[in-house]
Amino acid sequence: MKKDLKLIMDFQKEITVIGEVCSLLGWDQLTYMPKKGLGSRVEQLLYLSELIHKKVTDEKLYRTLKRLSKKKLAKKQGLIVEKILKDIEDSRKFPEEFVKRSSKATSLSYVAWEEAREKKSFKVFEPHLEKVVKIAREGIGYLKKPGHPYNSLLDSYEEGMTVEKLKPLFEELKIGLKDLIGKIKDTEIYKKQKRLNMKISEKEQRKLCEDVMKRIGLTEDRSRLDLSVHPFTQDVGFHDIRLTTNFRKNPLFSFEATVHESGHALYELQLPEKDAYNVLGSSVSLGIHESQSRFWENMIGKSKPFWDFYHREFKKKINVSKNTLYKDINSVKPSLIRVESDEVTYCMHIILRFEIELGLIEGTIKVKDLPKIWNKKMKEYLGVVPKNDVDGVLQDMHWAQGAIGYFPTYAIGTIYAAQLYEQLIKEKKNVMKKVSKGNFSDISKWLGLKIHKRGNYFLADELIKKVCRKGLNVETYISYLNGKYSKIYRFKK
Amino acid sequence: MKKDLKLIMDFQKEITVIGEVCSLLGWDQLTYMPKKGLGSRVEQLLYLSELIHKKVTDEKLYRTLKRLSKKKLAKKQGLIVEKILKDIEDSRKFPEEFVKRSSKATSLSYVAWEEAREKKSFKVFEPHLEKVVKIAREGIGYLKKPGHPYNSLLDSYEEGMTVEKLKPLFEELKIGLKDLIGKIKDTEIYKKQKRLNMKISEKEQRKLCEDVMKRIGLTEDRSRLDLSVHPFTQDVGFHDIRLTTNFRKNPLFSFEATVHESGHALYELQLPEKDAYNVLGSSVSLGIHESQSRFWENMIGKSKPFWDFYHREFKKKINVSKNTLYKDINSVKPSLIRVESDEVTYCMHIILRFEIELGLIEGTIKVKDLPKIWNKKMKEYLGVVPKNDVDGVLQDMHWAQGAIGYFPTYAIGTIYAAQLYEQLIKEKKNVMKKVSKGNFSDISKWLGLKIHKRGNYFLADELIKKVCRKGLNVETYISYLNGKYSKIYRFKK
Repeated sequence: MKKDLKLIMDFQKEITVIGEVCSLLGWDQLTYMPKKGLGSRVEQLLYLSELIHKKVTDEKLYRTLKRLSKKKLAKKQGLIVEKILKDIEDSRKFPEEFVKRSSKATSLSYVAWEEAREKKSFKVFEPHLEKVVKIAREGIGYLKKPGHPYNSLLDSYEEGMTVEKLKPLFEELKIGLKDLIGKIKDTEIYKKQKRLNMKISEKEQRKLCEDVMKRIGLTEDRSRLDLSVHPFTQDVGFHDIRLTTNFRKNPLFSFEATVHESGHALYELQLPEKDAYNVLGSSVSLGIHESQSRFWENMIGKSKPFWDFYHREFKKKINVSKNTLYKDINSVKPSLIRVESDEVTYCMHIILRFEIELGLIEGTIKVKDLPKIWNKKMKEYLGVVPKNDVDGVLQDMHWAQGAIGYFPTYAIGTIYAAQLYEQLIKEKKNVMKKVSKGNFSDISKWLGLKIHKRGNYFLADELIKKVCRKGLNVETYISYLNGKYSKIYRFKK
Repeated sequence: MKKDLKLIMDFQKEITVIGEVCSLLGWDQLTYMPKKGLGSRVEQLLYLSELIHKKVTDEKLYRTLKRLSKKKLAKKQGLIVEKILKDIEDSRKFPEEFVKRSSKATSLSYVAWEEAREKKSFKVFEPHLEKVVKIAREGIGYLKKPGHPYNSLLDSYEEGMTVEKLKPLFEELKIGLKDLIGKIKDTEIYKKQKRLNMKISEKEQRKLCEDVMKRIGLTEDRSRLDLSVHPFTQDVGFHDIRLTTNFRKNPLFSFEATVHESGHALYELQLPEKDAYNVLGSSVSLGIHESQSRFWENMIGKSKPFWDFYHREFKKKINVSKNTLYKDINSVKPSLIRVESDEVTYCMHIILRFEIELGLIEGTIKVKDLPKIWNKKMKEYLGVVPKNDVDGVLQDMHWAQGAIGYFPTYAIGTIYAAQLYEQLIKEKKNVMKKVSKGNFSDISKWLGLKIHKRGNYFLADELIKKVCRKGLNVETYISYLNGKYSKIYRFKK
């Protein structure tokens, strides 16, 4: 049994190490790689992903896991075996031929998506997305998770989550948000609002980004900040977590993106080191990961105390009062683009995508009708309609990459973030006073203790219940939004 | 046979791809990796180097190569099989236990070397270097190349080169240089020379570096320039060659280092693409590689026409005539440090190391006596003596990494560079006139045609004879130096 356990531990270390190498290759590709390096990079990533595939589908590993799963193991070892076996049994359900076909289809569809964006034409992408949807449905046929067919997709991003649980919660969320957006739109403040016109040089933006990273707890010896077209966080090693940002027209974009990515990075940096090379040392789910980034971005990074502190930095750049700055940063305005949307309207973008994904999987929505359906829902939920598909159905890369079932985790994370905030305030009375002095360390420590250091020992739902004493809870989130925005827009809750 | 050949081609591609990934890991480690990322990085590199080792020592590969080596193959295939078989048969001569012991000893000795430098104490490094020398001698016992025992070391860096060929050439070189240095030191100009005091901001230095890279032929889409403690060039992919430089007290250091590294990079960028994934597509030897960097650094980058052109950039920074600038850049002054030495005295540093290495291998020099012997030879060959071992025997990392037999390739490359220059001038009459206008493209093309595009189809000696109609030739080099420096220091040749 000792030998069997060693094989399992060695396997996990190998997979972790190769995964980190892939992370560096990916990070480099999006930050520093010379353009023409792409050909070699594709070969390098292909080689390593095939190596991982070979390891994961190894017969000896499977037999060892099966053998161990029947033995009486120590609790931790049992958990490790159970987790790996689940993943491997899932991936063994897909025929080899299907995996290759699927991987090829998504590569081609990503290229087509880029081309479609360039040509501003959904038609270019349409046949590829059709294939992607077909493949997703075929994959569901192999996995066959209980309940709604979409569960097979959702579970791979958010283990344990189902349509049965999520659909009513998203309905509740939609009603709550619609009501809130309506109330905001009716106010005089909304009708008269005009955004501040700030100009901050890239050099100054970078300094602000580096400052907030440090305050959140990312030290220079374990993390770094670079530039890429879309901000992201990458785990290159246990003590090597890298984030990126991007300078856009809105001079606050780089700062807010850095706060968001810092939330992801802090999670990775505070995972349990003793489990660095086994499955228990990784993050729980995409939803929990997103809860960390959304928590810092919204609950902290758009709070009054946070801007009471950062006002001193920004007033060097623009002559504006604390209050005006805070309100500007929290302006609600329905936007066409998900990643540019405000805290209130954000989840509407997710609900829209979730409903479309469900329709595609159930077969009630056809790919060719997507632009029309997209625009209709945008009109209904947000009151804005894109002029072209680049700002509409083509805006996100997820579907092009074959990721159907991923979007809900953004809203799940956002809701979890509000629950964590509620709990934090309960447990640490003075925490936001410290934020107003630029001291965020109590928060980073609390998150470390409650979430990060717990690694992957629990499912998302179990973990949130442990910390907040309730599972995914829309009411908490809506009540948080109402509390905050009724003050900003001066309406009755 | 088709299947056998496919196995060989697949093997080469795999090794190339893994090698490129290692290159990126190495490049990143020395440029952007957060300090504490080192632990994971070591694991990543160890994993991949073990993977390469496994591939190289694979029994099936060896049997296939042996089988093919007895068949009648097309010329190119035969050459490929011959080259791989030679490498593999060499590496199979080392017992596994020896490889591991050797690798461990050099890791430890590198750490000890760093510590010795910090503490300015050779004693810290001494026992480790003793082990490294012992292991080198043990390795020679396994390889047993014909002739002098040192040949087994030398051959792994410069295939086909031997002590029997090299020793008399280095003797000739030593006499020539001694004579030349003496003549220079006797001149009034030498006695009165004072270096210019230039100040160039890092931003301006970077602009100059980027400018010269472009003129040498390194385009932005296939290469990049970053910073590291020691400048180096790394091959991350066929179209992805990266160089680094470093800003030091001497504001010209970064520029000259960039010219040097650009020579290495241009070689890699002009190798034959059709052979990108087989052994014939790689560089010939360390000596030939160094000939490319030294050629650009010295023959072009320290030439009158080059500075006639770059004077216009530098005169913005310092008010000085073309001639004064040219002479300053070519000041001869014996220095303690190899990498900071001028064109004339440089090879003396190499001869010193070569003689010491020979002594260590022959057993006539003991490690414990190294500082004394080093300083004595410095006094004799260059007339300067280091105050401490950091500026003496501890200055280079090569021995600490187990690289004995490497240093001669620096002098070999320098001599080859002079031969290439002589040939270039013969074949392309107007080439230096174009250099004085900032146009280096004829040179880059000529080197591409004569050296780079020929890949690894020939040994160094064969290649140089093809291009220059003679093998390694000290006379050409000494005559080049005499011609140039008799003009600068105004003495009779």
